[in-house]
Amino acid sequence: MPNKHHPTNIKWHPTRVTPEHRARLLQQHGCVVWMTGLSGSGKSTLAVELEAQLIQRGHAAYVLDGDNVRHGLNADLDFSPAGRRENIRRIAHVAALLADAGIITITAFISPYAEDRASARNIVNSTRAGATDRFREVFVDTPLSICEQRDPKALYAKARRGEITDFTGIQAPFEAPRAPDIHVHASAHPVPDCVAIILEQLQDFGV
Amino acid sequence: MPNKHHPTNIKWHPTRVTPEHRARLLQQHGCVVWMTGLSGSGKSTLAVELEAQLIQRGHAAYVLDGDNVRHGLNADLDFSPAGRRENIRRIAHVAALLADAGIITITAFISPYAEDRASARNIVNSTRAGATDRFREVFVDTPLSICEQRDPKALYAKARRGEITDFTGIQAPFEAPRAPDIHVHASAHPVPDCVAIILEQLQDFGV
Repeated sequence: MPNKHHPTNIKWHPTRVTPEHRARLLQQHGCVVWMTGLSGSGKSTLAVELEAQLIQRGHAAYVLDGDNVRHGLNADLDFSPAGRRENIRRIAHVAALLADAGIITITAFISPYAEDRASARNIVNSTRAGATDRFREVFVDTPLSICEQRDPKALYAKARRGEITDFTGIQAPFEAPRAPDIHVHASAHPVPDCVAIILEQLQDFGV
Repeated sequence: MPNKHHPTNIKWHPTRVTPEHRARLLQQHGCVVWMTGLSGSGKSTLAVELEAQLIQRGHAAYVLDGDNVRHGLNADLDFSPAGRRENIRRIAHVAALLADAGIITITAFISPYAEDRASARNIVNSTRAGATDRFREVFVDTPLSICEQRDPKALYAKARRGEITDFTGIQAPFEAPRAPDIHVHASAHPVPDCVAIILEQLQDFGV
């Protein structure tokens, strides 16, 4: 039991680190660059290249994509509308935590439903009171015909044969953003040009 | 449709940023400092102070605790054994992602079950092939009697009256770590001394 020789009664009030402290340390503001687009549209390629360019410029950046999320945190979810919604909800929360930690966070998921993307923006912006909009929706706009022609994982072929269901663009809808923050025609321009377009739009965050 | 004027056939192979690139940029290695202990043991106080000291020393650090996880990512979970297990599983995955991003990540959750903590270590260490152990279990060891006397959120009183059930230490077990990486007697030493003990053990990560 505590007594006067024990310092258990000392009241200690640690000051929580503020976003301003972090911004000063990292010379940037944490944010979320949310890529949306069809399978095969180039989201992951752009995300990984954007991350590399940011790191090269001295920025702390990190990509959330299928590789590190679908097989880990979200391994318990399926591709039903409810599973997709929960997938996006969790990713939005994780992206918000990474942004809180000061990281320029890039997400690369199909995220086909406009409502889920709006909800992701809301989650990312509501974790801190008074935060300005730190969410940027990037529409990686590649026509379905080109995505299907590329078909890097042979998923369109499987979907056409009915071997997989609920595939976005074939059996499930992709609700294209009507007013994305950044619009990239990824099949019409080389990767570095697309990345440069995105980088230009991140000046608010110290890039 | 793509034609010879469209560069869609250009193969682009972005190089994924390696942990070494990040370590060079941030001058530290991402890791997870996992605090475990009873409610009222001082986990969050220590976590927040440790984070502040790390930031002051120029390290990128971030605390995951009830404030930013239970009401967000894990708002859908209850305090049943299954709910607690899923809570810890998700936190471990998020901590692993933050550590992958290069952050010194501090978690402050009761995490009462030894098996769940072992699983958390496994998740944190298995996300990268060949990664050395980057998980440090910190036992915030404060006797139940002192925690109950402090009762900062009046939860022990409620548990004793039966108004809440499954409360760790009263109706639910706390499985104390047998061989924690770091053992802190948080009721016997002032907060800054406890934080210093933890900091000393983080030299492997560049602290």
